[in-house]
Amino acid sequence: MFQTFDVTARPEQGPPRLRALRLEMAAKGLDGFLVPRADAHQGEYVASRDARLAWLTGFTGSAGFCAVLAEHAGIFVDGRYRTQVKAQVADIFTPVPWPDVRLADWLREKLPLGGKVGFDPWLHTRGEIAQARKALEGSGITLAASENLVDRIWTDQPPPPMHPVRPHPIEYAGETADSKRARLAETLRDSGHRAAVLTLPDSIMWLLNIRGSDIPRNPVAHGFAILHDDGQVDLFMASQKLSDLGSPLGDGVTVHAPDALLPVLGQLPKPVRIDNTTVPERIAQALGDRAVQGDDPCALPKARKNPAEIAGSVAVHLRDGAAVVETLAWLDAQPPGSVTEIDVVCALEERRRADPALRDISFETIAGTGANGAIMHYRVTTDTDTLLRDGDLLVLDSGGQYLDGTTDITRTIAIGTPGAEERTAFTRVLQGMIAMSRLRWPKGLAGRDIEAVGRMPLWLAGQDFNHGLGHGVGAYLSVHEGPQRLSRTSHVPLEPGMILSNEPGYYREGAFGIRIENLLVVEPAPDLPGGDPERAMLAWRTLTFAPIDRRLIRGEMLTEPERDWLNAYHRTVAEQIAPRLGDNARNWLTAATAPI
Amino acid sequence: MFQTFDVTARPEQGPPRLRALRLEMAAKGLDGFLVPRADAHQGEYVASRDARLAWLTGFTGSAGFCAVLAEHAGIFVDGRYRTQVKAQVADIFTPVPWPDVRLADWLREKLPLGGKVGFDPWLHTRGEIAQARKALEGSGITLAASENLVDRIWTDQPPPPMHPVRPHPIEYAGETADSKRARLAETLRDSGHRAAVLTLPDSIMWLLNIRGSDIPRNPVAHGFAILHDDGQVDLFMASQKLSDLGSPLGDGVTVHAPDALLPVLGQLPKPVRIDNTTVPERIAQALGDRAVQGDDPCALPKARKNPAEIAGSVAVHLRDGAAVVETLAWLDAQPPGSVTEIDVVCALEERRRADPALRDISFETIAGTGANGAIMHYRVTTDTDTLLRDGDLLVLDSGGQYLDGTTDITRTIAIGTPGAEERTAFTRVLQGMIAMSRLRWPKGLAGRDIEAVGRMPLWLAGQDFNHGLGHGVGAYLSVHEGPQRLSRTSHVPLEPGMILSNEPGYYREGAFGIRIENLLVVEPAPDLPGGDPERAMLAWRTLTFAPIDRRLIRGEMLTEPERDWLNAYHRTVAEQIAPRLGDNARNWLTAATAPI
Repeated sequence: MFQTFDVTARPEQGPPRLRALRLEMAAKGLDGFLVPRADAHQGEYVASRDARLAWLTGFTGSAGFCAVLAEHAGIFVDGRYRTQVKAQVADIFTPVPWPDVRLADWLREKLPLGGKVGFDPWLHTRGEIAQARKALEGSGITLAASENLVDRIWTDQPPPPMHPVRPHPIEYAGETADSKRARLAETLRDSGHRAAVLTLPDSIMWLLNIRGSDIPRNPVAHGFAILHDDGQVDLFMASQKLSDLGSPLGDGVTVHAPDALLPVLGQLPKPVRIDNTTVPERIAQALGDRAVQGDDPCALPKARKNPAEIAGSVAVHLRDGAAVVETLAWLDAQPPGSVTEIDVVCALEERRRADPALRDISFETIAGTGANGAIMHYRVTTDTDTLLRDGDLLVLDSGGQYLDGTTDITRTIAIGTPGAEERTAFTRVLQGMIAMSRLRWPKGLAGRDIEAVGRMPLWLAGQDFNHGLGHGVGAYLSVHEGPQRLSRTSHVPLEPGMILSNEPGYYREGAFGIRIENLLVVEPAPDLPGGDPERAMLAWRTLTFAPIDRRLIRGEMLTEPERDWLNAYHRTVAEQIAPRLGDNARNWLTAATAPI
Repeated sequence: MFQTFDVTARPEQGPPRLRALRLEMAAKGLDGFLVPRADAHQGEYVASRDARLAWLTGFTGSAGFCAVLAEHAGIFVDGRYRTQVKAQVADIFTPVPWPDVRLADWLREKLPLGGKVGFDPWLHTRGEIAQARKALEGSGITLAASENLVDRIWTDQPPPPMHPVRPHPIEYAGETADSKRARLAETLRDSGHRAAVLTLPDSIMWLLNIRGSDIPRNPVAHGFAILHDDGQVDLFMASQKLSDLGSPLGDGVTVHAPDALLPVLGQLPKPVRIDNTTVPERIAQALGDRAVQGDDPCALPKARKNPAEIAGSVAVHLRDGAAVVETLAWLDAQPPGSVTEIDVVCALEERRRADPALRDISFETIAGTGANGAIMHYRVTTDTDTLLRDGDLLVLDSGGQYLDGTTDITRTIAIGTPGAEERTAFTRVLQGMIAMSRLRWPKGLAGRDIEAVGRMPLWLAGQDFNHGLGHGVGAYLSVHEGPQRLSRTSHVPLEPGMILSNEPGYYREGAFGIRIENLLVVEPAPDLPGGDPERAMLAWRTLTFAPIDRRLIRGEMLTEPERDWLNAYHRTVAEQIAPRLGDNARNWLTAATAPI
């Protein structure tokens, strides 16, 4: 099993660690110290060595930070984690609703006489520090780069991860690393930049056609890279991770020890492009006035999947869909009240692991039944594990990291006989999901411009949900990949080849949750008779194939085009997935995909 | 009649005027001169004195500019005007597709050795000049403020408009000018600004509860104002315009001659707020380092209509709707082939003029039949006037400026028997219009976030239209008012009281056009049973009441909620408008609003 169900939060460990940290602060003459969830690569997952926030406080969410002062310890978490944080940390930590309350404002209130607050400049981005400093102007409070004080007191801190890097074969990557380096070097030259510093592991993996396993769920190795405007790359990564790499990185790539990075940065010709929203303050500092702001040059090319990457995604979704269907068929045979959330997680992972191309799950499976389904980022532990009971809805959100692609699928399943309110709400969520799946739109629009389409059926009922409609997905890389998103925060035009999730939901706290999620890839829309001939339009091709629970659909609420879409989708699910199933699951699928 | 039908473009007048302008340029040592459509107030309409672009070139569109060099004269117009410009200007002017081609790039190509290009700093905004200068960096081309060379050669240029200003009574304004000044002064103090310069006439009219008639279609007087952070206002306006003003402007308002503005600006305490997107370069220059960028403080308060303004809008729309219905009933009684576009314009204006509160039409009525309907900004002239023939669609887009409000309505009308393709397209446009009318959405969203809803039915058919879905509308002020818009360019959250148009369309060049437009006002959405109780949502209240041509609707394409909306709308039209009609029109309305 990749997934574990341990209770990791130990609130009682927090207070003594906090005391130790405060002693270090005092010894350094600091009035405060910042402990973020992030590592130097600003990813969604961190290595155990970098789990400083969880170690200090007990809080295990994927975002947030603790601001430790002599008398106060504020733990800043966003809306997703406001319930969870209370259960995970001791009273000595005060939850702060972030970003509603900004760090600077909180510091101004708690340190009215000013003070010096330390931070580790590897763990905070240039943008973050610049913004906080600006907001602190006139307060007398300063932010001071410092060594990491948590590392000083964390005596059994794990070492940095040292897992082997493997090549990502051309049959999956679809473009040689040489070609990528040459292509990106040209964009640097076009913008007059001599080099770009890459700090995001998935950018580096994509550029060099390699994959790693330094952190869970995300097939990346930690390192930094400099892409020069002639296509040469300096890679700063521990050589022991690269010793197993069968194929060489190519003539254009020079490997350096990680601690060579800072001296090299100080020698680069200017201007050097960095993305202030992701680059560590320490790197920006080392570049000084060499640095200019710009996007990570890998971000958009990586987001636009090429034909080989799309073919990989299509193939992996059929195999992953079969694993999901086998699990759904098995689950449907279990009487209500006989299996728990953990049983479902294990059953699903077991079926995924039967695929030799599986390398990991793409995130901790969310299996929340009844009221647990309303917790958007629910991770079942042995403490919370709950029986699936008659009348429950089970939200099952999961995915796999396969050599040929990354999957992410959510289905909501009726346990026994569902209630009327649940069915009505489910049908509305489905209508939003279908509306987005059916959409065609003029080229040039961003996620923000079309997201409303997937929310409208809920809005008309006075309902909504507190997460984006969809996120970008990598090709055997991050399951949450930017810059493409179906969200109000995304102004990047959607382009052919981008893979996104389409996952409307509905959550009634303390009662039930609903989410339906498919992955889709953007394609040029085919011409329609009577359509405007000169208008370039885009449309979705659905990648995910698994049945949508018919017992939860109120057919009379669907319009004819909605019903047609659903029946056609189910027909394709049956055609594509049935040949990959055992007899039981195949029979089950036939019934599960019957027309409505 | 307010509207005229003259052919105003005289292409043959352009070349001699261009020659004269080039002589002035040479005398001043300039290699070029810019002639924009805009006046110093950046409004949609200009006084005849300010119609320099039309005088020089013949082009009468509402946006664009001419860049005159010794050897070239480029006329920069956007997508709306690319056909029109060719018909209106002599060959010596070269149309340039703007904004695809930017002024700076065009100048770099035409003046490869550099050069000095003059411009009148009253007619270009600070933002425009700053952007062009930045884009010209390194080219050797400079932009030099100069007196207006067109004014030097335009011997019979009309004088500045000097029309009387009248009070806008409190029963319509809903808030005293004293209260507005005090309220806005507080927002200036909150942002630490000592004053704000107001250059938009509708801001000044709104703030001081006055209306003018210096330009057609828009009840404003030209002038500038400074709002101080204590609520005092300096108004720079010719005193003869104010001599008829029955009620005084109030103790807090000091009137100055227009030419006192520049000296006063140089004395203001800093910082002074200006909106770089609308303030003339000349004013920004005079302020020097006193100026800081900020929104016009009147913009949002003016956009959020108060209860008196909404009541005025509701009342005026019923009277305006009756005038429209009388016209539609009359039109329907005319056999195909018997009336022209101009006949329709005259018939409609005549019925509007019967209302004693009418002060002007709110823009030139667009009455385009057949292929003319596909020209979005069609203005019928004696040259283009066309008979309404059997099978035509007539696009009729019009509005009135009444003391109690501004209207803007479009209906598309079948002349004789409409074709199948026209009916299908009309029904899709109607579906978009209904979808937006029915929408509820969470508070905080901007026009950009919901515009897709009104376009989706067209997108699904591979179609779209090249204008925004809707624009803001003033309260007896501009018929096109920002910052609220249903458009990709609008990031301003929609708020209760904002009035917007909802006007999807479809245009097939050379064949037919379709547009359906109602005005709507944003309101808090009523709670729905089963809705999320904590979620604040907004919805529309429809203001415009006139029937939608049932002969153009393919009822079988409508969903049940769409049909319900349409029938309920028509029921309200009948109830509200019928009592205001003569017998013929009342009978006609009964049939025109029968359920589908």
